[in-house]
Amino acid sequence: MQWYFVAALLTILTSSQGILTKLSQNKDSTYDYDTATVPFLGEIFKLLVSCFFLWREKETSPTPPKLTMEWRSMRLFLVPSVIYLFHNNITFLTLKYLSPSTYQIMGNLKIITTGILFRIFLERKLTKLQWMAILLLAIGTTTSQVKGCGDSMCESLLSGHITGYILAVVSAFLSAFAGIYTEYLLKKNNDSLYWQNIQLYTCGVFFNMGWLIVGDFQSGFEKGFWWQHIFNGYTLTAWLVVANLASSGLLVSWLMKYADNIVKVYATSMAMLLTAVLSQFLFDVKATIQLVLGIIICMISLHLYFTPVHMLVDLPAIETPVRREEDP
Amino acid sequence: MQWYFVAALLTILTSSQGILTKLSQNKDSTYDYDTATVPFLGEIFKLLVSCFFLWREKETSPTPPKLTMEWRSMRLFLVPSVIYLFHNNITFLTLKYLSPSTYQIMGNLKIITTGILFRIFLERKLTKLQWMAILLLAIGTTTSQVKGCGDSMCESLLSGHITGYILAVVSAFLSAFAGIYTEYLLKKNNDSLYWQNIQLYTCGVFFNMGWLIVGDFQSGFEKGFWWQHIFNGYTLTAWLVVANLASSGLLVSWLMKYADNIVKVYATSMAMLLTAVLSQFLFDVKATIQLVLGIIICMISLHLYFTPVHMLVDLPAIETPVRREEDP
Repeated sequence: MQWYFVAALLTILTSSQGILTKLSQNKDSTYDYDTATVPFLGEIFKLLVSCFFLWREKETSPTPPKLTMEWRSMRLFLVPSVIYLFHNNITFLTLKYLSPSTYQIMGNLKIITTGILFRIFLERKLTKLQWMAILLLAIGTTTSQVKGCGDSMCESLLSGHITGYILAVVSAFLSAFAGIYTEYLLKKNNDSLYWQNIQLYTCGVFFNMGWLIVGDFQSGFEKGFWWQHIFNGYTLTAWLVVANLASSGLLVSWLMKYADNIVKVYATSMAMLLTAVLSQFLFDVKATIQLVLGIIICMISLHLYFTPVHMLVDLPAIETPVRREEDP
Repeated sequence: MQWYFVAALLTILTSSQGILTKLSQNKDSTYDYDTATVPFLGEIFKLLVSCFFLWREKETSPTPPKLTMEWRSMRLFLVPSVIYLFHNNITFLTLKYLSPSTYQIMGNLKIITTGILFRIFLERKLTKLQWMAILLLAIGTTTSQVKGCGDSMCESLLSGHITGYILAVVSAFLSAFAGIYTEYLLKKNNDSLYWQNIQLYTCGVFFNMGWLIVGDFQSGFEKGFWWQHIFNGYTLTAWLVVANLASSGLLVSWLMKYADNIVKVYATSMAMLLTAVLSQFLFDVKATIQLVLGIIICMISLHLYFTPVHMLVDLPAIETPVRREEDP
């Protein structure tokens, strides 16, 4: 399977996520189901799918899939979950200092932090052209989100508390680091991807269960234990939200193993723009010139990052390294 | 003299133009002097300076400067003035159909039309990377100008009359064509630049005089003939506006001869951004996030257009053409 096909599919699924979520809302923008249960059920879904694929791989593959069973290796799969635990708490804290729209704008920093950590931890060299493409991607997504300066928006962006901005930067680094670490884990050995997924999602299930328990305590067990109310209010659309989230998660994991974090960042950024475009048709959202500009910027960025250089500047297709005459 | 030094100087002068003009206003945004006289006096200034430089060139240069005196060649210098005559009238017409802010946004099209006509008429090939850089420059300047969508702005941009948009496109092509034609004229032979300037500005003087006469007729000669009121209300700042306009004009002409239209487009676009930044300090103008985004986009564009490819993608510095073994 080609990575760009998977990336395109991820773009579509990620984009559908926002739209499905919106469709699963009531008219007054409330939910009949508990949205905190979505990630938990998603992890369960991914775990089951991965178990099925691993079983099928065992049955059909001529060589048995490689499974590293050592605790030393397995415990590393806890790391992404722990990072997300910190990340989620920091997000919660950040929103005390920054308005949601400022937080959303600051979220685009993740594109740049992913590039930085990709370079530092995975030691993958990027050309200057690719760095500029990454910067443009972040600029493009930001441009599409800017609401304008006639209202209070433009002041609020610059008038948040400094703590909020620092937390937003920390948050961008943590979120990028979770992605980079997952890529490192999945590429570190040639274990079956499904086996790696099982380890990843088992941790995910437990950490998300932790969140549900915390929620139970916070609500004073008014609806009982989490397993007593987990499926309350689930409609078909709500189940589609779960299935869609889980499927995008599986595609992300595939991309991390066989492509990389930058491809994933492009897919999710394009998805954001696609959601914005689709929202104009599906919901009563006004088209903005910022969105059009943002889309063009991101398209140029995509082109700059992935097009082979000789197609950008009319060099001969094959770059021959400089040959040296050998000493006689 | 290096072209990038001249381009930087042009950026500073063009940027000062807006600020000086603003400083020459009264507190109620009116002018004591007649702004229609500024271009005319500017052309006179440029003509005098060019005459002086041509005289100095004759005195000091060991070889006499080359001056083509044929009418067949000289009449071509009328063309840019004629184009500007059409252009100015179309601008006037366009503003009947589009709001000033929409007209300003549409003005960024000139960057792209300059690229297109540069390719077609001057037959200068641009790489895909350079085309993307030009597109980005137009996007960047547009981004910096977008006022936001909270107000009526975003609707008004898309709700102008179709005739207005068509006229704006025609206007962008005409304005670009005047620039491209001037470059063609100046580069067509190795005549002294000052002699070429003299021909260009003589036409300019007469065409601008025409505008002043038209103005006299429109006002019903209430202030008499144009030469009777041309210097009315001129303060030192107003003279600085004229001197600044004329100096930038001379630099543009130098760039057209020794660099090209694209360099000029970059200089004037950067000037627009510089003016916006300086306005924040000098006048009571609010900083917008759009301006910051626009500046970053234009900086990336500048970098993409002018940086040698091997510095963008780590190729060996010298591109050796593919050698063929000669037949024995």
